Amino acid sequence: MCPTPDQIETNKEDMVPVDLSTAVKSNGTDRHGDKKGFYARPSDFLSNTSNWKIIESTLREGEQFATAWFDLETKIKIARALDDFGVDYIELTSPAASPESRAHCEAICKLGLKRSKILTHIRCHMDDARIAVETGVDGVDVVIGTSSFLREHSHGKDMTWITKTAIEVIEFVKSKGIEIRFSSEDSFRSDLVDLLSIYQTVDKIGVNRVGVADTVGCADPRQVYELVRTLRGVVGCDIETHFHNDTGCAIANAYAALEAGATHVDTSVLGIGERNGITPLGGLIARMMVADPEYVKNKYNLHMLREVENLVAEAVEIQVPFNNYITGFCAFTHKAGIHAKAILANPSTYEILNPADFGMTRYVSIGHRLTGWNAIKSRVEQLNLELTDEQIKDATAKIKALADVRTQTMEDVDTILRVYHTAIQQGKLKVGQPEVFDRLLDEHHASRDTSPSRTPAKRQRTDAEA
Amino acid sequence: MCPTPDQIETNKEDMVPVDLSTAVKSNGTDRHGDKKGFYARPSDFLSNTSNWKIIESTLREGEQFATAWFDLETKIKIARALDDFGVDYIELTSPAASPESRAHCEAICKLGLKRSKILTHIRCHMDDARIAVETGVDGVDVVIGTSSFLREHSHGKDMTWITKTAIEVIEFVKSKGIEIRFSSEDSFRSDLVDLLSIYQTVDKIGVNRVGVADTVGCADPRQVYELVRTLRGVVGCDIETHFHNDTGCAIANAYAALEAGATHVDTSVLGIGERNGITPLGGLIARMMVADPEYVKNKYNLHMLREVENLVAEAVEIQVPFNNYITGFCAFTHKAGIHAKAILANPSTYEILNPADFGMTRYVSIGHRLTGWNAIKSRVEQLNLELTDEQIKDATAKIKALADVRTQTMEDVDTILRVYHTAIQQGKLKVGQPEVFDRLLDEHHASRDTSPSRTPAKRQRTDAEA
Repeated sequence: MCPTPDQIETNKEDMVPVDLSTAVKSNGTDRHGDKKGFYARPSDFLSNTSNWKIIESTLREGEQFATAWFDLETKIKIARALDDFGVDYIELTSPAASPESRAHCEAICKLGLKRSKILTHIRCHMDDARIAVETGVDGVDVVIGTSSFLREHSHGKDMTWITKTAIEVIEFVKSKGIEIRFSSEDSFRSDLVDLLSIYQTVDKIGVNRVGVADTVGCADPRQVYELVRTLRGVVGCDIETHFHNDTGCAIANAYAALEAGATHVDTSVLGIGERNGITPLGGLIARMMVADPEYVKNKYNLHMLREVENLVAEAVEIQVPFNNYITGFCAFTHKAGIHAKAILANPSTYEILNPADFGMTRYVSIGHRLTGWNAIKSRVEQLNLELTDEQIKDATAKIKALADVRTQTMEDVDTILRVYHTAIQQGKLKVGQPEVFDRLLDEHHASRDTSPSRTPAKRQRTDAEA
Repeated sequence: MCPTPDQIETNKEDMVPVDLSTAVKSNGTDRHGDKKGFYARPSDFLSNTSNWKIIESTLREGEQFATAWFDLETKIKIARALDDFGVDYIELTSPAASPESRAHCEAICKLGLKRSKILTHIRCHMDDARIAVETGVDGVDVVIGTSSFLREHSHGKDMTWITKTAIEVIEFVKSKGIEIRFSSEDSFRSDLVDLLSIYQTVDKIGVNRVGVADTVGCADPRQVYELVRTLRGVVGCDIETHFHNDTGCAIANAYAALEAGATHVDTSVLGIGERNGITPLGGLIARMMVADPEYVKNKYNLHMLREVENLVAEAVEIQVPFNNYITGFCAFTHKAGIHAKAILANPSTYEILNPADFGMTRYVSIGHRLTGWNAIKSRVEQLNLELTDEQIKDATAKIKALADVRTQTMEDVDTILRVYHTAIQQGKLKVGQPEVFDRLLDEHHASRDTSPSRTPAKRQRTDAEA
């Protein structure tokens, strides 16, 4: 059978080198910094999960979102908010797309942002490049389709032409002292040889970064890991990644890419972009917090997250999804009896993220049929009521019975507990007298005209603003 | 430099075995069924991405969602809808949680669902087991915390006790002819030896399935793949997986698990559940469609997806997120000029999912500043107007200029195109006369009193219902 904990400790030297200590930190790592509990993987020297940069593309990819229409004032607000959050780069729509895009690009470059560098995004075309270098941007991202699909349908050009044009554009931009990144579209359906050839070529010319993009959202994390790792062995420059979320892997793919040696991840606020968007800023932060909380906390101004999300949501007329990472109303809501019990004892049991890091609070929902006496006990203590465990269990039974009819609000729960407590103190009630308690509750409500409402309470967003 | 496509074809035999054919199917695979473009991975015999089952847990995990309060009538509606969709299993809240949970469980078992088997979910406790086996369920899921964290905080019991109790419950449930699954909570922070020991033990006793759960949402796909693959080599029974979405990896983790040999995935509609929930049904379907569209289309009634999501969203008083997989309003919205051009030529260029499979249509947004003349040309053709490419480009310039001020609705675009076309036909306008065209447009609006509105048009959900 299973060895006991003592036996495990004794036999430690004989076994696979796993630290079986129960001293697990809230991010799931042991004292060596390795993921606890699973056979500790040898540190992957390629991994950049503690050293990576955000290329924030709300003002480029985000403009491709269905209802996005940013006037200059809005773009400036968003740019400043992203700068305050601390993103490494802000990417803007190509100045070649329209005269107004160009004007906006120039205006934002003049803002004098404190932290974020400004990039723009162009097609692999000298016309676009000539415009871009005059706008004041710090860097230019050049994208071209290399997959057979795109070559056939989007450009109608073959690889040699693509390579020739790429070199011309790259050398021109570099000559202006501006950062340049070269990337392919639809990288995960591209011919590998094509891809590596062109990346190797542009790396030799001296691009600052190459980028891979899952333009259609079909890539999966293990596939991403393999391609990025392969690429890591071919180029010496930085590697940027761009993942669409059609199949729900945008965040996971970004993580796998960083594990494989990528250096930059494209994001947008709430993930807005073409179709259902790309790696969301908040979601990526959540993922990377678990990988290395100190890195993320020290680098980014996490308390700004909700503000920037609200700003963008308003600008594109959408609601922040109910289940949004970190800031969605239910992100830190714990309900089930088992979970609530453990959470109250030690929040990191069921919470891999700490809401306080983002200026938010936790909410443990206790007035429902799945509640447990431990969650109720916690509330009893918060209310400074003195009840024995047996009495608390008794009161919990009443709360669950009432919750079977409709969810009890926190106010309902408080009332029940106070009435119970007073009745116990005054000797009017003993454990195991539900009918007596029913009567006392009715009397209480009648005397105050505070009958509970008949409709199920809608849970409001309860996490408090910092 | 890069070889030309012809050279690549010729040298095919010398190279890494990669099919360089441009005949790529819409799911990104070549004629051999391997992922196109990337060095074709040897088929992984462990992978179950074409043979997997859904354990739909809206009525168990979903009940733990912050605002969930399902009365029996609602549960029955949801159960029937899930059955119509074709999920393999429906999981219900423990009948031991409250008298009403028990009554609901029994009622749903009596429904006589056509397709879905019914499971319930209990703690590893004989009291719970005795109740569960009397309800009429087809199977019982037993969960216990094995991680050091949970053992310390949730149960306060050690591994030998856990194992002893597990055996007792399992043998009891099996003796009733009911399916049984045994699973751990917080599997990814559990001691590997503990985990494998207990799973090996229960496998020998004869459980139908073991399950791994990422209870706190901290696992990443490569980690999942490794654990599930390891487990696959230890047990002979089925492997079920349950992933929380706190760090955005619930779908990706499910996929990695299936690649590694897991057989079942827990889902809930819209992912509702504890905190920000678990693998969403729609999102998982999107992911698995790309892996094997025929399997998914033949097995599940995809046209039911939106209906079941709307049903659940209404029941828990939430909005379907704007960016929801497949059914979110922007899931199939294509906007950028480059993308629109390719989409119009061949939808699979930028669309890895086909909306028609789900009873939905695609929407290409064309009245905005990033539009391209190809998208406009498509509309011209739909309107049966005759214009040369040069004329279309001219009209497009006008549309973009107007869109710089505010996004043009489809109606606005149609008006512009019709006025342009008429003017060209009547000889009142030539290419390259924007001021003349401005005047003609003004005259048109004045004569019909149809001045375009001043505020940016909010993009409505435009995908048509089947």
